[in-house]
Amino acid sequence: MTATMRPAATAAPAVPEVLGRTRDAVQPALRAAVDRLDETSRAISAYHLGWTDADGTPVSGSNGGKAVRSALAVLSALAAGAPQQTGVPGAVAVELVHNFSLVHDDLMDGDTERRHRPTVWALWGAPSAILTGDAMLALAQEVVLDSGSPHAIAAGRLVSETTRRLIHGQVLDVQFEQRDDVTLPECVTMAAGKTGALLSASCAIGAVLAGAPAEVVGALAVFGEEIGLAFQLVDDVLGIWGDPAVTGKPVYSDLRARKKSLPVTYATTHGGAAGDELAKWLAGGETGDEAELARVAALVESAGGREWATAEAARRVETAERAVAAIPAGPREELIGIARFIVHREA
Amino acid sequence: MTATMRPAATAAPAVPEVLGRTRDAVQPALRAAVDRLDETSRAISAYHLGWTDADGTPVSGSNGGKAVRSALAVLSALAAGAPQQTGVPGAVAVELVHNFSLVHDDLMDGDTERRHRPTVWALWGAPSAILTGDAMLALAQEVVLDSGSPHAIAAGRLVSETTRRLIHGQVLDVQFEQRDDVTLPECVTMAAGKTGALLSASCAIGAVLAGAPAEVVGALAVFGEEIGLAFQLVDDVLGIWGDPAVTGKPVYSDLRARKKSLPVTYATTHGGAAGDELAKWLAGGETGDEAELARVAALVESAGGREWATAEAARRVETAERAVAAIPAGPREELIGIARFIVHREA
Repeated sequence: MTATMRPAATAAPAVPEVLGRTRDAVQPALRAAVDRLDETSRAISAYHLGWTDADGTPVSGSNGGKAVRSALAVLSALAAGAPQQTGVPGAVAVELVHNFSLVHDDLMDGDTERRHRPTVWALWGAPSAILTGDAMLALAQEVVLDSGSPHAIAAGRLVSETTRRLIHGQVLDVQFEQRDDVTLPECVTMAAGKTGALLSASCAIGAVLAGAPAEVVGALAVFGEEIGLAFQLVDDVLGIWGDPAVTGKPVYSDLRARKKSLPVTYATTHGGAAGDELAKWLAGGETGDEAELARVAALVESAGGREWATAEAARRVETAERAVAAIPAGPREELIGIARFIVHREA
Repeated sequence: MTATMRPAATAAPAVPEVLGRTRDAVQPALRAAVDRLDETSRAISAYHLGWTDADGTPVSGSNGGKAVRSALAVLSALAAGAPQQTGVPGAVAVELVHNFSLVHDDLMDGDTERRHRPTVWALWGAPSAILTGDAMLALAQEVVLDSGSPHAIAAGRLVSETTRRLIHGQVLDVQFEQRDDVTLPECVTMAAGKTGALLSASCAIGAVLAGAPAEVVGALAVFGEEIGLAFQLVDDVLGIWGDPAVTGKPVYSDLRARKKSLPVTYATTHGGAAGDELAKWLAGGETGDEAELARVAALVESAGGREWATAEAARRVETAERAVAAIPAGPREELIGIARFIVHREA
């Protein structure tokens, strides 16, 4: 990822530079937090976070991924006029909550690979995945409560509430697999829980720890929530029409999995005859070959699912950027830079 | 359970009366907390807590079990000279952490029954058990942080730290199944995590919320920790020699499961020739018939495991009671009453 990959005309700040800077601020605190875990949970967390191999050997030069959530948390403190250090405990907490949910979700979904490496449960079994996730969740709260911020209670509450929304999103996702009557508002609630809630908390928690006024915290929370939805809409479009060479997933992967994604749910509930045909196919059990999946993708498209999802993502990005209009220009531009990076790159 | 079941000579307060009184104080707050969960997690939690059947029908007259942990939390506030209401958010939190761990442990251990009812994962599957447990854990923190106590941060920290000790205990328990070289200190650490940590937090959290001095909080924490260990020692003795009619478990159940319990680990590490023979049997894979298990139980006994565990439990109870000597007599006697009830009844 180099700066030259972005159109030269945009004034967006250099995202890799921002991510590098915030990562340097957060990583030592994240490592110190993980060091508090019992030996086993610590070793498994270090593997999951990309710091070590399965046998505990440090991965040289590993920075533990893009860490966009912790970058947003640090920028959130800056947006509230506080030093970036104020956002660091919040950054560690959202990173831990994110990774708690990944470790549990991989187990629930039966996914054996993440970022081209075996998942925790695939290596160490279900009990270890459950316990390591639990430990990371408990640790997230501890870090916020230990921050020394006079606003630690509000930040801790945000972590709890966000975790419950995240869980609700996953609860709905699990249920949708068994249902044929998912409505678009339900699908949006699911995506808002699974993706919007934690991005919203990431964008707000630094300002909360800084004791920012409610309107600043609220603006940042809306920003993150809308960016989360926009990301999910784009991701769902890529899940159907994305280039496998770019997404790293097989072609039509979400259709193969009969996923009730946002464009699919728009199509089945607002897409007329094509939508009805799509709904019938989803309710059936047959696994289609590639030609069949191409026909289904065309149904989603002619039912308006692709166009709606693309336009809705753009609307959400606009809403997000409008929400932070009153934030000082420097942090605002960096937040918007990371947000665009999330929406358009993190497929 | 009636008062006449206890020897008339003891001056112990009427435990059922104390449990009833504290339950009346805590139940509405616990129900209000569970009401905050998403619809699915709420329904599953209500079932697990004994309030409803699997189909959601309220269980008439159900009080959700003995709830000894929440009773201790309420008494903890009284011990610090605060009104019992001060302990209620702490009581709700420890009850939620306890039940989070039960729901996850039942899944990890593959247990299909608890309190004569199917377990959550057995009814709704592993993902629902994972998510419901996660939701209860997040909720526990939220209740403490919402308490309005000026000491909510310290109470929240106690909940996080306790949860991590609980997880550490379960991590060790899972590992012990694969190990033949478990030492007695390791076994005590495991039991202290699985049983001591949350009873310690239960006994301390009301005083923490009341802002009690460190020596009061510390005394109550030691009391709970020692009571937890004593309970586990007694429970482990019953797991081998308990009367199936009383324990509700098959005879020699812990030996059948080759559990590295406290008396067994004492025997294998301090029990001379009999202990060595026991260790050899544990390392072997054969499932013994009842005569074989009786022979193994006799090995634990002649290696000194039963005598040590029984004496150690008594020593721990003494240490516990000495620790709270400076607590005002009223709450102290009620705490000791509940503690004796836990150690001797909750098999």
